[in-house]
Amino acid sequence: MAVRVGVNGFGTIGKRVADAVRKQPDMTLVGVTKTTPSFEARRAVERKIPLYLAGDGPRSEFEAAGVPLAGTLDDLLGSVDVIVDCTPDKVGKENAARYRDAGVRAIFQGGEKPDVAEASFSALANFDTAVGKRSVRVVSCNTTGIARAASVVVGRWGVERWEATLVRRAADPAESKRGPINGILPTLQLPSHHGPDARTIYPDLPIATMAVVVPTTLMHVHTNRLRLARPPASTAEVVAAFRATPRFRLFAPWERVDGTPQVMEFARDHGVAGDDMMENVLWEAGVRLDGADLSFFQAIHQESIVVPENVDAIRALCVPGSRAAESIRTTDQTLGLSRP
Amino acid sequence: MAVRVGVNGFGTIGKRVADAVRKQPDMTLVGVTKTTPSFEARRAVERKIPLYLAGDGPRSEFEAAGVPLAGTLDDLLGSVDVIVDCTPDKVGKENAARYRDAGVRAIFQGGEKPDVAEASFSALANFDTAVGKRSVRVVSCNTTGIARAASVVVGRWGVERWEATLVRRAADPAESKRGPINGILPTLQLPSHHGPDARTIYPDLPIATMAVVVPTTLMHVHTNRLRLARPPASTAEVVAAFRATPRFRLFAPWERVDGTPQVMEFARDHGVAGDDMMENVLWEAGVRLDGADLSFFQAIHQESIVVPENVDAIRALCVPGSRAAESIRTTDQTLGLSRP
Amino acid sequence: MAVRVGVNGFGTIGKRVADAVRKQPDMTLVGVTKTTPSFEARRAVERKIPLYLAGDGPRSEFEAAGVPLAGTLDDLLGSVDVIVDCTPDKVGKENAARYRDAGVRAIFQGGEKPDVAEASFSALANFDTAVGKRSVRVVSCNTTGIARAASVVVGRWGVERWEATLVRRAADPAESKRGPINGILPTLQLPSHHGPDARTIYPDLPIATMAVVVPTTLMHVHTNRLRLARPPASTAEVVAAFRATPRFRLFAPWERVDGTPQVMEFARDHGVAGDDMMENVLWEAGVRLDGADLSFFQAIHQESIVVPENVDAIRALCVPGSRAAESIRTTDQTLGLSRP
Amino acid sequence: MAVRVGVNGFGTIGKRVADAVRKQPDMTLVGVTKTTPSFEARRAVERKIPLYLAGDGPRSEFEAAGVPLAGTLDDLLGSVDVIVDCTPDKVGKENAARYRDAGVRAIFQGGEKPDVAEASFSALANFDTAVGKRSVRVVSCNTTGIARAASVVVGRWGVERWEATLVRRAADPAESKRGPINGILPTLQLPSHHGPDARTIYPDLPIATMAVVVPTTLMHVHTNRLRLARPPASTAEVVAAFRATPRFRLFAPWERVDGTPQVMEFARDHGVAGDDMMENVLWEAGVRLDGADLSFFQAIHQESIVVPENVDAIRALCVPGSRAAESIRTTDQTLGLSRP
Repeated sequence: MAVRVGVNGFGTIGKRVADAVRKQPDMTLVGVTKTTPSFEARRAVERKIPLYLAGDGPRSEFEAAGVPLAGTLDDLLGSVDVIVDCTPDKVGKENAARYRDAGVRAIFQGGEKPDVAEASFSALANFDTAVGKRSVRVVSCNTTGIARAASVVVGRWGVERWEATLVRRAADPAESKRGPINGILPTLQLPSHHGPDARTIYPDLPIATMAVVVPTTLMHVHTNRLRLARPPASTAEVVAAFRATPRFRLFAPWERVDGTPQVMEFARDHGVAGDDMMENVLWEAGVRLDGADLSFFQAIHQESIVVPENVDAIRALCVPGSRAAESIRTTDQTLGLSRP
Repeated sequence: MAVRVGVNGFGTIGKRVADAVRKQPDMTLVGVTKTTPSFEARRAVERKIPLYLAGDGPRSEFEAAGVPLAGTLDDLLGSVDVIVDCTPDKVGKENAARYRDAGVRAIFQGGEKPDVAEASFSALANFDTAVGKRSVRVVSCNTTGIARAASVVVGRWGVERWEATLVRRAADPAESKRGPINGILPTLQLPSHHGPDARTIYPDLPIATMAVVVPTTLMHVHTNRLRLARPPASTAEVVAAFRATPRFRLFAPWERVDGTPQVMEFARDHGVAGDDMMENVLWEAGVRLDGADLSFFQAIHQESIVVPENVDAIRALCVPGSRAAESIRTTDQTLGLSRP
Repeated sequence: MAVRVGVNGFGTIGKRVADAVRKQPDMTLVGVTKTTPSFEARRAVERKIPLYLAGDGPRSEFEAAGVPLAGTLDDLLGSVDVIVDCTPDKVGKENAARYRDAGVRAIFQGGEKPDVAEASFSALANFDTAVGKRSVRVVSCNTTGIARAASVVVGRWGVERWEATLVRRAADPAESKRGPINGILPTLQLPSHHGPDARTIYPDLPIATMAVVVPTTLMHVHTNRLRLARPPASTAEVVAAFRATPRFRLFAPWERVDGTPQVMEFARDHGVAGDDMMENVLWEAGVRLDGADLSFFQAIHQESIVVPENVDAIRALCVPGSRAAESIRTTDQTLGLSRP
Repeated sequence: MAVRVGVNGFGTIGKRVADAVRKQPDMTLVGVTKTTPSFEARRAVERKIPLYLAGDGPRSEFEAAGVPLAGTLDDLLGSVDVIVDCTPDKVGKENAARYRDAGVRAIFQGGEKPDVAEASFSALANFDTAVGKRSVRVVSCNTTGIARAASVVVGRWGVERWEATLVRRAADPAESKRGPINGILPTLQLPSHHGPDARTIYPDLPIATMAVVVPTTLMHVHTNRLRLARPPASTAEVVAAFRATPRFRLFAPWERVDGTPQVMEFARDHGVAGDDMMENVLWEAGVRLDGADLSFFQAIHQESIVVPENVDAIRALCVPGSRAAESIRTTDQTLGLSRP
């Protein structure tokens, strides 16, 4: 029987998770919530996704806009096996008890602190940890990017030391109220929270992260430098390992992709859904092994990279006997991700 | 029998026209051309669109990249009824004789001067002009936006005076070498070329245009102020007229679309193709009639707005007995545009 | 005896007004206020400008930072003849009674509504109106730009109709929390408030304004189109009139200034104070008279354009017998503005 | 007797070097060159700096613009002891023989390859190397930033390993033709050229650099992580060492400087010259020592940071018996830099 899924919050992450759930053979999307009517609410209606009122939003606004409501969040909770919390940062924490009281399993996003759930989750790294749990937290976009890369290098070659700089986008494309417009803001907290967050997945990962915020909306870019314990023979071997791993996309030099604008152009052309790019993006020419020192860039699409992880998390929590490789294969195939 | 179509140039406009042609019931896409391999060439291969070598590009680069070529531009010209020239500005002019010599009909883009073809074209305004011609020029994105708006106001209410300021995007999203990054550049030519260009469609249009370039990649925005000869009774009547016209999309206040970033977000959600928005975009709250004076904003998606016009132009040139309303209806339906 | 001046608020406008006041032969800067210590407070200390605590800010923070305070706002009010209110929008309104009770004259900025003061003020247009008043409001940067331009055209040639589009900068250079980063936001209110605001200076000005916000921090740019009642003979005559007016700077084509980034570069080079540009900036090549229709661009430096107007306003309120031409000449000479 | 200095190229670097030379007690600025008239040429004229024609530019354009020329580059070379080459990248190389033939000493910029001159130069690190040479190359802005930081850490604490990511500005403020407008471009060359370039100053420096380009015009920001051989006792000791070194400026937390836009605001306020910031900028809160691992951010003003280095280079080449500490002290004092 299909897992009945609700999505609380129909914004950047929520709307993508909802679309992804609808594509899964073993899941049913029961509904989504919103606090106010908007063009995004209209999207739900057009796709025939039942819309529920979140919080104590003004029901009258929906009526005035002609956007029908199927009920409230509590109604939704009464009809699902699992709720995916895609509310703004820190709101998930407030919702946790409500989900527990309703007897539904819950998935939280990386904007919440780790203690919001029984475990933190990243599919390539620790799927099995989540099996049988009642709640997990899918780590944030940047941490997901790091955890996926770690799944390639840690077991294969060992990591003695990992330095990463996260060059972060300042706002999502549709956000008009965040800056800076012209400037670079250092995240003065040292190390940035991303390193410790990665250790909720890989407890001993010797990673140190620094971050800056820059005026772009498209993607984050990470610079990575690692000292490997058992380095492979060549750069080509590193490239091959990334290519052999799900949820990585590598661009060859002849493809002439010079940066995140062209990665997004590729994504628009590819046309799975808008311009989503759910894979870690690497440039072959931007990978280099020099003795035991590995350097590589990766670009991370903050809006969509956690979507497949949320789908896998649903399966880990709700489908008895689910296994990592199989879930990842199903998720990636239904979402149109490249096959290694 | 289906019209056999070739597309010369597979960049921003060409790739979209190719996709659109493939969706038409009465057209066949024979192939497209490219000068160098790239991720966009890969897109053609993945979609099984035959790829031809444009100009005297280096065939060896395609071979090295494993991108198969079906022939040269001349081979393509030998197999089509009409060629859509989507080469960079001014290159179309150089190609015109070649198309003529090959005996194919030709459609040029607005980056060429008007004399490149027998007529300039904008579907809502002068479809009939193009019927039976051997070549037309689809006017540029900004001029298309103006001509469509003119098709709503000129006949209905008469225009005594029209002032427009074009706030132009500085580069397309995938272009990394154009600026400015932080600043506004006035287009010092007065009036800007857009007014005269609009008169290739509406010969007596009393429009005066000024333009500035601003650091954004998403869309142009026009501010318009018109003195009407026979004004309607109310702003609501103006809004209704735009809503009743194909290729216009109006956002209501409750949809909370605050600018071009959210228009693009709507387009991504809508998911027809990447984030294309082939319609003139107006905000209901940004339309105001004050006596005989009409003010309105419109946003123009420079990458895709001319796509339906190119499709209609193909039909006008190549399908005997084709008529405007019918062509527009077919084009819009196949491209997923909203129906008035 | 020198006029004793206080500046309430030491931000973008306040710090510039304070510097300007210090350069006037007939004024003394008694002190400025700030709510929190910052690098800008340090600037006051380095320049030996007494710093007063605004509102009920935390005095302890100043002490911890080693930034000495000379007293509170009330202390400052007790020592000045006039206070220039440079607090954030709408705060001036709250302060008005306090200034009145303290018996000091007051100058407000354009972020306040007109009824905050006895009159609105723009030096070239209505200096005399302010003489003898106890309070005036210096109109905002964009309105100041319009009022100055009106002072050139209204009397000379008559204005029958004036259409302006204001392409507004989204944030000031030092603001990191405002966007958009990539997009254009229409100001849906029609007409924008600038036209009505200009009529607080020129009551019958037939101007209609529309505005958009764009992702730049440097300057606003206005496009202007006017129908003149008694047009001059040539574009050259228009250029000459602007050149003959104080507080206008025109760039000749050979100077190769292609937009606001290079206007700011000119200002940096000129080096009066940072990169301030207190004059309306016009491009000669961007002025065109066509019969009775005049078109021109002007760029407005939002951070500094109102500074000379504030200085003149002080003189109008506080120096008995002051006259416009003389005050403007003194102000411009001390601030290093170009002489017509 | 004062050293007679010429500056070939009056652009971003050249105009700043010219201004700096004029402030030195032991130097005379003989003249500068330009290829075309522009607002920057006007600046030279206003400051009474003789202007010479560079290359075979069109003398007639200067005449038409009313910008007087004092002669040609050869004339200038005949009147100076040393020429500072501030021409675009790679042009300096072409000029080298001409300078040699004219018998003048020469200083090149970091856009040239190291072999353009007898030695590469950074004042804090290797002033003595340059003494008595006939030519040196002042390393680029980013390399100067690295070399200065190295002068603090290398001798004091030893460096075992240094990872740096350079987040580079895409264009200078006045450049309108360079992008990207919205995106991040990785510099795929690994390591980036900055590490090897730093070794022209510190031959054994174990630094590895990666770089990305981001859409801002103000400053570069470096993230740095070092493993120290003989670490100091505390972060405070590190901060103190930077504070004790010329050409470093540290911001304290209470100053509320959140990124490069506010660093530039500080520079504008400080008002030495436009908004130049010739010092490496560090945030105290952005320095952290964790055992032997040191992390810190630094911001580098690409337009002005090499100016004091050029001044010192002139002295090293031309003033017999000149010594580092003394030259640096004179340079910094005349340029208004902070004193440690």
